Formats: sequence, structure tokens, C-alpha cells
Amino acid sequence: MIQILRLNHRIHRDERLTTHVALTARAFLSSKLYYSGQKDSNFENSIKKVNKQFGSKFTTEYTKNPLKLIQNKKKSKFTIIHLTAYGLQLPKILKKIKNKNILIIVGGSKVEPEYYKLSDFNISITSQPISEVSALAVFLHEFLNKKELTSTFKDAKTKIIPSEFKKVIKNKENQ
Amino acid sequence: MIQILRLNHRIHRDERLTTHVALTARAFLSSKLYYSGQKDSNFENSIKKVNKQFGSKFTTEYTKNPLKLIQNKKKSKFTIIHLTAYGLQLPKILKKIKNKNILIIVGGSKVEPEYYKLSDFNISITSQPISEVSALAVFLHEFLNKKELTSTFKDAKTKIIPSEFKKVIKNKENQ
Repeated sequence: MIQILRLNHRIHRDERLTTHVALTARAFLSSKLYYSGQKDSNFENSIKKVNKQFGSKFTTEYTKNPLKLIQNKKKSKFTIIHLTAYGLQLPKILKKIKNKNILIIVGGSKVEPEYYKLSDFNISITSQPISEVSALAVFLHEFLNKKELTSTFKDAKTKIIPSEFKKVIKNKENQ
Repeated sequence: MIQILRLNHRIHRDERLTTHVALTARAFLSSKLYYSGQKDSNFENSIKKVNKQFGSKFTTEYTKNPLKLIQNKKKSKFTIIHLTAYGLQLPKILKKIKNKNILIIVGGSKVEPEYYKLSDFNISITSQPISEVSALAVFLHEFLNKKELTSTFKDAKTKIIPSEFKKVIKNKENQ
């Protein structure tokens, strides 16, 4: 099981980036995104709409106390991964975490030292400043062994058909 | 050579997302990002600052006429890739474009049909709505055969040392 924790969300200012994090998490077969900071119904609704149209059981949930959430996940035997420019290189860690239940933490602007300490692995994608969105995508792409590239969601109202030009089909059973 | 074209940038509204696109392009070994829409000095300067501190010859350039830019790149034998949820699946295309000079187009909100037609390949990462940032990252990760994960830039003032906790070294020769 793959879950995400997005830290320090701010209404308006972070809405689009957190949405991109969530859409990436969903398409890359995560089951849930927790987020801390400010509770944001607009953000939550935009993800619900995507689920309704394109399928998947992906959910979002606001958490007031992300440190406690992490501690609870550790008790439930989740491996805690923190994606940060400063972490260890992914190829060195990948074997150690394959097939585990994981919680992936992504910032947020400044991430407090507690999160580095609580994490089982601080992992960097490229050891350069990039984006939590691209770091999450490449991490999950490797973790899933590319499985997400050709996966589909059964409960979709609209299904995108890979094609040279735009092509979708409406699934009448799910309308 | 890898170049990117980011369409329809809007000052303020798109600044952070376009910055994340550019940081991803830079860390994933692209040489240049063109962008259309509104010219944005804040965005350009923020990328210059990252280059100055962390190295690389990556540049950004505003273009008023993105369609003409694409036509010129085609004349210079670039293969034009458009990343879109609606495109063909990446694994089917990858062999055809390996080792080519490529220009990768990413939206922008709505992308006009001309861009689909001018592109040699419309490619989708996951056939789901995701993010131009994560689509670009996973595309380049596959195109580069993971090379970006362990690459370094020689002209860096500050170099991030992959580690379990934060660690950087200041390169005195480049200060």
C-alpha cells in the first residue's frame, strides 16, 4: 500500500501544486494522500471530481497532526520515506523498500528536522532542487517498476484511449 | 540535446508551476527551456539563481511565437514530443526517439490542436490527468535511462552530498 503525506499546505497559494501532487499520487497507484497545514475543501473537491470521472479509489484526508500520523503509521509497520533534495540516492535504497507498505512525505516549503529523524529513509531524486511533484513521480515510477504506465482504473466514467490524437470513451455502465 | 517548450505561461498564476517545470528540466539534463505566454523576469531570475548556486548551463528563453519555434526546430532535425494525457503510451515510442535531439512541449492549460499536429509524437505518461511536472520527469527519466539520478554539475558553488541527513559542501573554487 502506498500513501502520501503532503506537509504545510496553504489555501490558494499551494492549491495547484498540491493538486498536482495528488493527481500524480493517484495516477501512480497510491491509495491516499494526507495533507497538513490548512484544510482546503476546494482542493479536496477537485480531486473527488477527477476520481468520479476517471475512476480509482484514491482519497484525500486532512490531518492536523502530521507527526502523530507518522508515528501511528510506524506502529502499523509502514516504512516512512521522506523525499528531499538532501537525501540518499534512490538506486541505493530501492531494494530495501520493495513490496513494503510505505508512507511518502513531501514538503512543503521548509521541512522541520523532526521529519528527517522520524523517516526510515530520506531519499533524493537527482540531489538537485527539483519539485515535490517530479520527485514523487520518479520515486513511484521506480517503486512500481513502471507498472503505472499501463494501468487502468475499472470504475472510470471516461477512459482516455492512448492514441496519436485525442480519444476518450464514455463508459455507459459507470455514468 | 534536450530542450523544452512550456506553453502559455501566465505571470503570478503560473510562476511556481513553470519554475517546477524548469527545475525538473534542469536537473534532468535539459539544456534549455523556452516558454510562451507572458514574459516573466521573476521566473527567469529564480532559475538563474539556482544555476549560479548549484551549477549547470541550463538557460531559459521567452518566445513570442511558439509555433514558429517548433517549425524551426523541425528544420534543424529535432524530434518534437508533446506530453499530453491523451497521447500514446511511452513504452511503445521510446525506442524510436532514443539518442535524437528532442524538443518536448508541455502545456499550459488548454493546448490548441496545432501542437498535436506539429508534434512527431504525442505521448502520455499513465493516460490519466497528472501534471506537466511529473510527466516531464518520468519521460526524461526513461529517455535518459536513469542517468540523471547520479549526474553532477561541475560548476556548482554548493553541492548537495547524498546523505541520511542534510549535507552540502561549498566549492571555494566556484565562489
